[in-house]
Amino acid sequence: METLFVMVPLAAVLALAFAYVFYSQMRKESEGTPTMQEIAEHVRKGAMAYLKQQYKVVAIVFVILALFFAVLAYGFHVQNSWVPFAFLTGGFFSGLAGFIGMKTATAASARTANAARNSLNAGLKIAFRSGAVMGLTVVGLGLLDISVWYLVLNAFVDATGPQKLVVITTTMLTFGMGASTQALFARVGGGIYTKAADVGADLVGKVEAGIPEDDPRNPATIADNVGDNVGDVAGMGADLYESYCGSILATAALGASAFYNDGDVQAKAVFAPMLIAAVGIILSIVGIYTVKTKEGAGMSQLLKSLGFGVNLSSALIAAASFGILYLLEIPNWAGLSCSVIVGLVAGFIIGQSTEYYTSHSHKPTQTIAHSAESGPATVIISGLGMGMISTAVPVITIAVAIILAFLFATGFDTANLLTAHNLSLGLYGIGIAAVGMLSTLGITLATDAYGPIADNAGGNAEMSRLEPHVRQRTDVLDALGNTTAATGKGFAIGSAALTALALLASYIEEVKIGLQHIGTTTIDIAGRTVDVAQATIPDFMAYYQVDLMNPKVLIGVFVGSMMAFLFCGLTMNAVGRAAGKMVEEVRRQFREIKGILTGDATPDYARCVAISTQGAQREMLFPSLLAIIVPVLVGIFFGVSGVLGLLVGGLGAGFVLAVFMANSGGAWDNAKKYIEEGNMGGKGSEAHKATVVGDTVGDPFKDTSGPSLNILIKLMSMVSIVMAGLTVAFSIL
Amino acid sequence: METLFVMVPLAAVLALAFAYVFYSQMRKESEGTPTMQEIAEHVRKGAMAYLKQQYKVVAIVFVILALFFAVLAYGFHVQNSWVPFAFLTGGFFSGLAGFIGMKTATAASARTANAARNSLNAGLKIAFRSGAVMGLTVVGLGLLDISVWYLVLNAFVDATGPQKLVVITTTMLTFGMGASTQALFARVGGGIYTKAADVGADLVGKVEAGIPEDDPRNPATIADNVGDNVGDVAGMGADLYESYCGSILATAALGASAFYNDGDVQAKAVFAPMLIAAVGIILSIVGIYTVKTKEGAGMSQLLKSLGFGVNLSSALIAAASFGILYLLEIPNWAGLSCSVIVGLVAGFIIGQSTEYYTSHSHKPTQTIAHSAESGPATVIISGLGMGMISTAVPVITIAVAIILAFLFATGFDTANLLTAHNLSLGLYGIGIAAVGMLSTLGITLATDAYGPIADNAGGNAEMSRLEPHVRQRTDVLDALGNTTAATGKGFAIGSAALTALALLASYIEEVKIGLQHIGTTTIDIAGRTVDVAQATIPDFMAYYQVDLMNPKVLIGVFVGSMMAFLFCGLTMNAVGRAAGKMVEEVRRQFREIKGILTGDATPDYARCVAISTQGAQREMLFPSLLAIIVPVLVGIFFGVSGVLGLLVGGLGAGFVLAVFMANSGGAWDNAKKYIEEGNMGGKGSEAHKATVVGDTVGDPFKDTSGPSLNILIKLMSMVSIVMAGLTVAFSIL
Repeated sequence: METLFVMVPLAAVLALAFAYVFYSQMRKESEGTPTMQEIAEHVRKGAMAYLKQQYKVVAIVFVILALFFAVLAYGFHVQNSWVPFAFLTGGFFSGLAGFIGMKTATAASARTANAARNSLNAGLKIAFRSGAVMGLTVVGLGLLDISVWYLVLNAFVDATGPQKLVVITTTMLTFGMGASTQALFARVGGGIYTKAADVGADLVGKVEAGIPEDDPRNPATIADNVGDNVGDVAGMGADLYESYCGSILATAALGASAFYNDGDVQAKAVFAPMLIAAVGIILSIVGIYTVKTKEGAGMSQLLKSLGFGVNLSSALIAAASFGILYLLEIPNWAGLSCSVIVGLVAGFIIGQSTEYYTSHSHKPTQTIAHSAESGPATVIISGLGMGMISTAVPVITIAVAIILAFLFATGFDTANLLTAHNLSLGLYGIGIAAVGMLSTLGITLATDAYGPIADNAGGNAEMSRLEPHVRQRTDVLDALGNTTAATGKGFAIGSAALTALALLASYIEEVKIGLQHIGTTTIDIAGRTVDVAQATIPDFMAYYQVDLMNPKVLIGVFVGSMMAFLFCGLTMNAVGRAAGKMVEEVRRQFREIKGILTGDATPDYARCVAISTQGAQREMLFPSLLAIIVPVLVGIFFGVSGVLGLLVGGLGAGFVLAVFMANSGGAWDNAKKYIEEGNMGGKGSEAHKATVVGDTVGDPFKDTSGPSLNILIKLMSMVSIVMAGLTVAFSIL
Repeated sequence: METLFVMVPLAAVLALAFAYVFYSQMRKESEGTPTMQEIAEHVRKGAMAYLKQQYKVVAIVFVILALFFAVLAYGFHVQNSWVPFAFLTGGFFSGLAGFIGMKTATAASARTANAARNSLNAGLKIAFRSGAVMGLTVVGLGLLDISVWYLVLNAFVDATGPQKLVVITTTMLTFGMGASTQALFARVGGGIYTKAADVGADLVGKVEAGIPEDDPRNPATIADNVGDNVGDVAGMGADLYESYCGSILATAALGASAFYNDGDVQAKAVFAPMLIAAVGIILSIVGIYTVKTKEGAGMSQLLKSLGFGVNLSSALIAAASFGILYLLEIPNWAGLSCSVIVGLVAGFIIGQSTEYYTSHSHKPTQTIAHSAESGPATVIISGLGMGMISTAVPVITIAVAIILAFLFATGFDTANLLTAHNLSLGLYGIGIAAVGMLSTLGITLATDAYGPIADNAGGNAEMSRLEPHVRQRTDVLDALGNTTAATGKGFAIGSAALTALALLASYIEEVKIGLQHIGTTTIDIAGRTVDVAQATIPDFMAYYQVDLMNPKVLIGVFVGSMMAFLFCGLTMNAVGRAAGKMVEEVRRQFREIKGILTGDATPDYARCVAISTQGAQREMLFPSLLAIIVPVLVGIFFGVSGVLGLLVGGLGAGFVLAVFMANSGGAWDNAKKYIEEGNMGGKGSEAHKATVVGDTVGDPFKDTSGPSLNILIKLMSMVSIVMAGLTVAFSIL
């Protein structure tokens, strides 16, 4: 058993090694002309300046929170003593994943543009392999952190028998809170930064001054390109690091409790998600090597090429999971393997549905483009309407995935579906499905991180005034990136929903530990006295009356649903405010620095970068802290049942809202591109202007508020888990 | 006891009598010049043509559903045999309330315009008293229907002892489903109609042709005015009829089960909500008589005048409820009276918060107006952001109201908060709070229905080319109507949330009846055998495991949240499509009928009316039927726990989404009005054009999708209640 576990750190090291190889290969390529290098240097500096500032603010928050946990742990003893450290490492690694990804992306964009001067394939290869650096770094650091903590806790944890693995896994889970906190700041801060710059650059540059995208005369253009890196790369890296670790850790914790009384099986169930992830890394690397394309390839061939790599990895991991679970001799290994496949298939369907609703090869986005004939208002109405309708397929897919993963894991024991035993097994199955969905993250994230690199390459080509065919090639790569990014977001949201469900069960586990911590050894359930140590999930549900007629649960559901909307509203308004400042600054520069528009004077790029940086830092604090404080307050007022209501309400409304916002935003973006390709009057027509409005509204939808929601959902769960001890020890109602 | 009940039909008759008096008084006024009469006739004809068509379609749906219920009741015996009839009368009265309201409104608008030629006060009086016809008709018909059914069932129901009142109240509840179904069709159909006409008229007339609002040269202008009547009057009438009856009936049903073993108290608890409603009618009439204003009154004085009437009625009913519950000798009468006050205060706070977020005297709407300086995109972003943020206060208010109403009703028995007994009492308290909130509906609905009358009066004044001061006066009345309408929507949503909670408990009651129906006399709960007849709410929660770790519940929550979004998306797109057709038609008329714009030719108003009518009828069916079918399907697949998850998920997400959409829409409308009052460049400026885009997007938000959501929530509850027998007898998982 322990020998099999060695695979986990090995796979982590392998991932990091390949990431290093791809990184070195990329660094060897030329950055092109001096102008290209200079522009790339501007973007690098801006991005680093932002990250430095961001990490400074986040570090302060982390120190404060870690001190708070330390006080709870060492002062009041209502907290596990490992939590402050676990919290810090989770945050550190999550930030590191984002940092490395951004470092790579900013180095790769000029090189991609330069390679695209030779051929499309050369451009794709550099961009995609650089994306793979990010993908492999995230999964590598994730498994590394998990391995190290497992070994440390295994050596030091003061428990024996099956209880030991429960303590280890629930403690490890708390480093998820560090990752979530870091991820939320990265997503929200980066999202505000990138969209303030983007909206500001578009509104004044494109619409008012009438200069093209990425034109060097636009003062906000460097900030815009920096934004792609800090929002889409660093933000997404931190986000998916958190999703990845969260799903593995939650499933491991479920395994430890589901197979508590099954001797040797318990350890196997804990290792299973880690091993699936480890094998997934190897198969992702295989998939990465298959991605290439022919010169003159169109959008559909490129998509096929990327799709082939991803699908190959997925098919292989599906097959491999049967092998892994068979070798582990886990009871009902075949059923659990089917749960893995359920997760993979659900991820695929959500991805396909996202593509259908957001790609302009399909009817929904074309309908939005056609509505542009009656002006911007109808573009907005139809985009919002379409986005809302597009929630149906992902929700039904997740609903079916939940019940199928549950049924497979319980061996379709429908007659006794909800016994304590089957419930644990079924929840473990749902966790395994989430792990399955994310097991190929090494390659899916590569296709995702590749997008901003291609986008920046296009920006660099434009600003360096390279030959038109270079920009054409980078445009093809960029358009492809838009679709893969949308698919990636679908994945992130889908896995977040399944992981959040698994985290609900982990919360119960922490409540149990919290009860034991304050010396409660038995609980009274409708006249039955139950030993806390032996109490099952249904026991705790009954004890706390976590049912849908409990007003505390219902209040929690209301507040949870509201949190999703409030959070989005705050981040939307933050983008609006920061973009407003950017608009003023760009207008001021056009007015005061003579000769910008004729190309005789250089705009003050740094000032725009500074404005976006300050705006993002100021605006990200309140919504992020809200996500941490509200679960604590609900716990204090309404106890365990209120917290569970909050999490479920936030999950339901947040999931649907996230899909809606991501899809509306993606569809608006591509409706604009559809017209730019020459349909309905093409660029500059009234219809085009109407879709530019849609695209601008869509920016915070798809890149700020929408993607932050899935972190919000999980951060609220993680906070609840970490604070369960406090909630159990003290709540008013 | 029975003598006190006589008050209920008496109050109903009183309400209808006053409605008739106000109606006759209004009819005696002059309709003004021949042009004014002619235009009013156009609107009347259009509105009648629409309602005729609407009722035809709805009648077919009703006949089919009634037959279906008859088959379930008489063929398969899984349905109460009174349901088909109760269902039909609920639908009939709900439709009748809308019909009378619309009949009154279309008669009143020209008369209001004519009276406004003399003085503002005369105009206000006619418009407001006509609105009161609607308010009093709704509450009168509501209590009449309740009284008649109570007397019929009391005479014929085949049960004795406390069981009799349980059967009577749960049977009466099912006429709520008829009312909800009718209301949903009225809201969705009317909402699509009015916004298709409005958007169509604005986009071509105002934006493209540059002619003012309500200009007779605009072919869609009659359809636009018809729309105000069929959407805002007929739709709202049916909607609030349903809310009003729903809250009273759900509370009565809760009373019958909460005080099942308390002898004489049971009947009192059943009558209490009816008596509070009856007294509320009398006090509403008192309030209506206090509304008047001085000539030259500004917006704030008018608002104060209406506010005085509403607040007076509310204060009186708060005091009266202590008297009623004291006289009834209900145990803990003081606590329950406080629950009534909790409902009233919550309604007031939600109304104030709505006003704060949507009136342009306050910062949020002004901020949206200022964002118009950077174009339509930022107007949309800030409006959406503000709307999302505005959900916080109503949600927190409802959460606090829930827990306070619950605590008051249980006498603050926090140590045993969730015992079966306290749960029943507490839920009854929540129901009583909803009844309290709606008890002054006679006057609050008058302030609400008054809006479209004033709006139409303005349209009539414009089209009849009356003196400018007339239009100025009607504009003042209209602006006031926008604020009161927003407040009214807040009320409708708030009461819907509380009523929906009460309906959850009623659902459990129906499940109990369903179990008895299929011959299940005992259920096994964790080893305990419980007699179904004696089983409590917690017993059923435990039996069906309706807790938050049950995957069926979680799937229900996901699907419920999705339903709210899907429904909105479908109705938004319906408006978009129908508006597109209207835009084409108006453009065609401008192109083909020479001389329209110079005033030499009359546009073909009837064609536009026909297009809106057809569009509304075609588009309303699918979303409405979805609301009926989904709860049935969820019941078949996932049983009782899945249905409860669906209802709670739909309630949580639906409530927040409804507040968001209503407030965003209202704020956009008033941001436009703020600029039209001369701020930021005034009418015709770029900023104004940007806010017109916001207003157009806001139209389906605040008048189609948003207000339909609270009916959706309750219709799904009602369908679940009516179909509980089927769910209990047959479900797959």
